[in-house]
Amino acid sequence: MTLTEIAQKANSAALILAHLSTDKKNQALNEMARILEENCESILSANKKDLEFAENAEIAKPLIARLALNEDKIRGMAQGIRSVAALPDPVGVKQKSMELDENLTLHRVSCPIGVIGAIFESRPDAVPQISSLCLKSGNAVILKGGREAQNSNKVIVNLLTDAIKKVPGIPEAAVQMIETRSEVNDMLKEEKYINLVVPRGSNDFVRYIQENTKIPVLGHSEGICHNYIDREADLEKALRIALDSKLQYPAACNAMENLVVHQDIASQIIPQLVTKFGEKGVLLMGCEKSREIDPGLAVASEKEWDEEYNDLKLSIKTVENLDEAVSFINEHGSGHTDTIITENSESAEKFMNGVNSASVMCNASTRFADGFRYGLGAEIGISTNKTHARGPVGLEGLVIYKYRVYGNGQIVGDYSGENARSFTHKPL
Amino acid sequence: MTLTEIAQKANSAALILAHLSTDKKNQALNEMARILEENCESILSANKKDLEFAENAEIAKPLIARLALNEDKIRGMAQGIRSVAALPDPVGVKQKSMELDENLTLHRVSCPIGVIGAIFESRPDAVPQISSLCLKSGNAVILKGGREAQNSNKVIVNLLTDAIKKVPGIPEAAVQMIETRSEVNDMLKEEKYINLVVPRGSNDFVRYIQENTKIPVLGHSEGICHNYIDREADLEKALRIALDSKLQYPAACNAMENLVVHQDIASQIIPQLVTKFGEKGVLLMGCEKSREIDPGLAVASEKEWDEEYNDLKLSIKTVENLDEAVSFINEHGSGHTDTIITENSESAEKFMNGVNSASVMCNASTRFADGFRYGLGAEIGISTNKTHARGPVGLEGLVIYKYRVYGNGQIVGDYSGENARSFTHKPL
Repeated sequence: MTLTEIAQKANSAALILAHLSTDKKNQALNEMARILEENCESILSANKKDLEFAENAEIAKPLIARLALNEDKIRGMAQGIRSVAALPDPVGVKQKSMELDENLTLHRVSCPIGVIGAIFESRPDAVPQISSLCLKSGNAVILKGGREAQNSNKVIVNLLTDAIKKVPGIPEAAVQMIETRSEVNDMLKEEKYINLVVPRGSNDFVRYIQENTKIPVLGHSEGICHNYIDREADLEKALRIALDSKLQYPAACNAMENLVVHQDIASQIIPQLVTKFGEKGVLLMGCEKSREIDPGLAVASEKEWDEEYNDLKLSIKTVENLDEAVSFINEHGSGHTDTIITENSESAEKFMNGVNSASVMCNASTRFADGFRYGLGAEIGISTNKTHARGPVGLEGLVIYKYRVYGNGQIVGDYSGENARSFTHKPL
Repeated sequence: MTLTEIAQKANSAALILAHLSTDKKNQALNEMARILEENCESILSANKKDLEFAENAEIAKPLIARLALNEDKIRGMAQGIRSVAALPDPVGVKQKSMELDENLTLHRVSCPIGVIGAIFESRPDAVPQISSLCLKSGNAVILKGGREAQNSNKVIVNLLTDAIKKVPGIPEAAVQMIETRSEVNDMLKEEKYINLVVPRGSNDFVRYIQENTKIPVLGHSEGICHNYIDREADLEKALRIALDSKLQYPAACNAMENLVVHQDIASQIIPQLVTKFGEKGVLLMGCEKSREIDPGLAVASEKEWDEEYNDLKLSIKTVENLDEAVSFINEHGSGHTDTIITENSESAEKFMNGVNSASVMCNASTRFADGFRYGLGAEIGISTNKTHARGPVGLEGLVIYKYRVYGNGQIVGDYSGENARSFTHKPL
């Protein structure tokens, strides 16, 4: 099949998926969970092939770790699908109802977006996760996983579509997979049939997707997150939060990359930061002012402020006041997550109003910015877009709405010109 | 100024606009309304220059009519601005609140998108309308009007920024205007600073914008809308609705272009349609089946079904059943607005579930799909997008949200590993 044919099939499937009952979707999801658990062996033997290939190809150790499956991880996949089944159906929710006139009513009702293109790297657990989120939200999905995981992904997708086939009325093309890089480029051209692309992977990878398609992209490339330690910060909280923001999982997109410090407390806090981060092996860089306090800091050149290290590196910027902190963060941040540490609630509000990011926090670690921690139940990704969905995105990000109007013969001609009827516009 | 400088200024302004009080925004809006009314003369004299230019350039009559201003129209502009001032502020609305844990709360709060690029054709009344909607929603706007209206637009924008300057704290760059076509192309490249483009104009114009920018575009190019007259339609309602859908304002995007008829009632209704539409001078075309009933119908070639006439032309398609009607509409429609005429509520639901359009209707004219009629108070445009905002879009389409997290020193480390704390995830 050509990519256009695949996308057309997905589009036809989406029209059916859009009005499946919640029961039917959950039935398919539970079947998916069951079939994965029942076929551990075949999944693991496919995974073994991927691992052998990865080892021969001398792929980096952390990547291999993410690629490797075991029975526990497969049970985890099944559990993940069941938890998606347990979430409320995001489709068919009446968001607004209004009487336009007697016997003429308007409803805004949530509905699926249509066809989702999901492109991701090595982890095979992305396959059941993304497939289940798309099915629950009534969207058809075209998956493209990493080459390293291709054997595992293929077996898993086949099992998922076997599960789907067992539930009458669900189109098989609800979940499809493509395998080659050139198909990805073809997919990015199918704006007629694919309504949203969700890429997960390295910054460069996501940026490539963003720059090479007219289809809306949900996600983020960089995660350049900040802590700002205010003049009125509780310094003990500041240290705890800074260490957690940087170190709890340095490779995460919501880990801190730049630390901004108010000059009035810089001489107190910077030496403590140097000690604590030093103990953890973090390379610290500083601006000129910061280096006046601790000349042991490496020089932070201008480009440092715009870099996502995802590593044990941190740049420290000393600012004159809160306004400078906000401007600095808006200039150098990536609009992902930024936190202020302060005991002054007015300053907190000023910071949270002024910083133009998807998540703004006060006295909490940037690492909280995550769909699970935010209580969304499941996460399709974290978005730094300014339209549609922002921040950690759950099932809600996979739906849009349509307007439904119920009349009994009304025409617009009756509402215009002389003796025009008026609309009642009464919320229902 | 280069376009990048203009966009940067807008971006800086947007950061301030984002947290202006409702009062301050309304104060500026009321000042805008007042200043337009007080300067009728200078607006009309600029408009006269545009009209002279248009007449010399032999611009089409309807375009000139839309371009021409008078005192009444200017009072209408002022009234429009005041009605935007009277709308609820879409910014700062708490959409969701959740306790994540003791003393750790999450709020999802609406906020402006940032910088809007608005590109439109001849009507000068678009300037105050779009400017007021953007200001009310806390967005900075860069306007580009049609060349025909440039004198009028310039005077109006200058008056609006004069009004803005009178309210302390509102950045002047809240409303900016560019004037040349080449600046539009530059604007479309400013995805770093411009967050949304709203084009209004001809299909070709909107399509050009959509195809030449990486900035999200809110709008629609085609409006290919359908009526489907079901087997169980009340034929009197069907005739009324069909005539209104086509003729109440044929140039509107929500006017009907294709009429789909169930074969069981085709022989009854088609002759009546031919008579009624014939009286109004509408050129009727038909598929083969329709022409078997009335060979007087012109032949509808395949390309007719995908064309937006915006004119006194209509194509009639006879189908075997409701399923074929739905498929036909999903294939040939533009996802704008489609209506079924039927007395069978099950068929109505089936149609409204199956047709993948922004507005689906039962027994009502497609012409109802409009922000004013839907009670949105004001309309920035009608969108056929599948993400962000769909259908008639009011102020809500100009906002997104941000997450605000309030803690008192919480770190993620405490919620992982052994003895991990649990989240409470309690809706507030």
